[in-house]
Amino acid sequence: MTENFEITTFENMKKNTLTKTDKSKKGFIDEKIKKLIEKINENKNYFTTSSCSGRIVLISKGKKKNECEWLYSTHELADKDELWNLLQNIKTNSEVFFKMESFILHVSCKTLTDAEKFLLIARKLFKRAGIISLKKLSIEIIGSYSIETLIIKDKKILISKEYLDNLTDDANEKLKLNWEKMEEFKKMIYLL
Amino acid sequence: MTENFEITTFENMKKNTLTKTDKSKKGFIDEKIKKLIEKINENKNYFTTSSCSGRIVLISKGKKKNECEWLYSTHELADKDELWNLLQNIKTNSEVFFKMESFILHVSCKTLTDAEKFLLIARKLFKRAGIISLKKLSIEIIGSYSIETLIIKDKKILISKEYLDNLTDDANEKLKLNWEKMEEFKKMIYLL
Repeated sequence: MTENFEITTFENMKKNTLTKTDKSKKGFIDEKIKKLIEKINENKNYFTTSSCSGRIVLISKGKKKNECEWLYSTHELADKDELWNLLQNIKTNSEVFFKMESFILHVSCKTLTDAEKFLLIARKLFKRAGIISLKKLSIEIIGSYSIETLIIKDKKILISKEYLDNLTDDANEKLKLNWEKMEEFKKMIYLL
Repeated sequence: MTENFEITTFENMKKNTLTKTDKSKKGFIDEKIKKLIEKINENKNYFTTSSCSGRIVLISKGKKKNECEWLYSTHELADKDELWNLLQNIKTNSEVFFKMESFILHVSCKTLTDAEKFLLIARKLFKRAGIISLKKLSIEIIGSYSIETLIIKDKKILISKEYLDNLTDDANEKLKLNWEKMEEFKKMIYLL
């Protein structure tokens, strides 16, 4: 009876979460990660609770914790000239950082055994994969590529156009490698 | 009997690992993380298997996987002029990156309940904390600060001395914040 109860709870949570996900799909689940997520959600023992396919962002960070502002964000390849023009028009006293972030994914698992199975597969490809809650049997996976560097301080742009071009090339390259890794991971989901 | 066997195994592993750790202490366990590690190892239900207190590095990355070379590495605050001089003398065809990495810690736990307890405490301070192996009941914790940016490409230094100074200031600042977080974490270990 306990087991039945647990299964029902998991299935209800899955149903509720995926319904919620559907609602936000229009604006928030990006295409690049959609198929991976669908593949995972096809398996009755797992469901995804949040995701991002990776992105290139400009972010300002104030002195206080959580005093952050997104000045630019794209899940696609970034355009050098657009970024450079944008930089000229940023008015902030805060420090501004250029960042490339890899995909991130949170998955809920039905049982501890299911979590172990998922973790073993994920860790074949990703160094940053772990169970972050035993209560919720929730796994977090983060891709390995990243860039993070200061570009504006005391209202002054610290980098040249040439350096921004190099940064953007590198970020775009890493975003593509990140997508390839997601594709590779998608092909391994059948092992679950 | 099973439980006794498990406990004996855990205690033996702890003893073996800590003896090994002692051997490498002279060269490899850095002072900044030593007290945190000792605090954790005082608890009979946990032992640390590897650690780094955070560092500032210059690293060259070739096209092939694992084709990396450390050109500079410090666990202390970095010196701007030393870094700039070093940059002038780097001879490599590979891309070179400036990185600041936060502390990283791996901890083995005796039981799943012990792992859960450790995880709950670690996640109060760190977003990147998770169980990475259920077999070994191993937890990985990584600090939140990071810098990673390309600085040499096609044998050309892409940044100015002024920008390197800014990067180094930021890296040193983040290294200090990272040490503070470790200190804060150390004070929470008694909760285990």
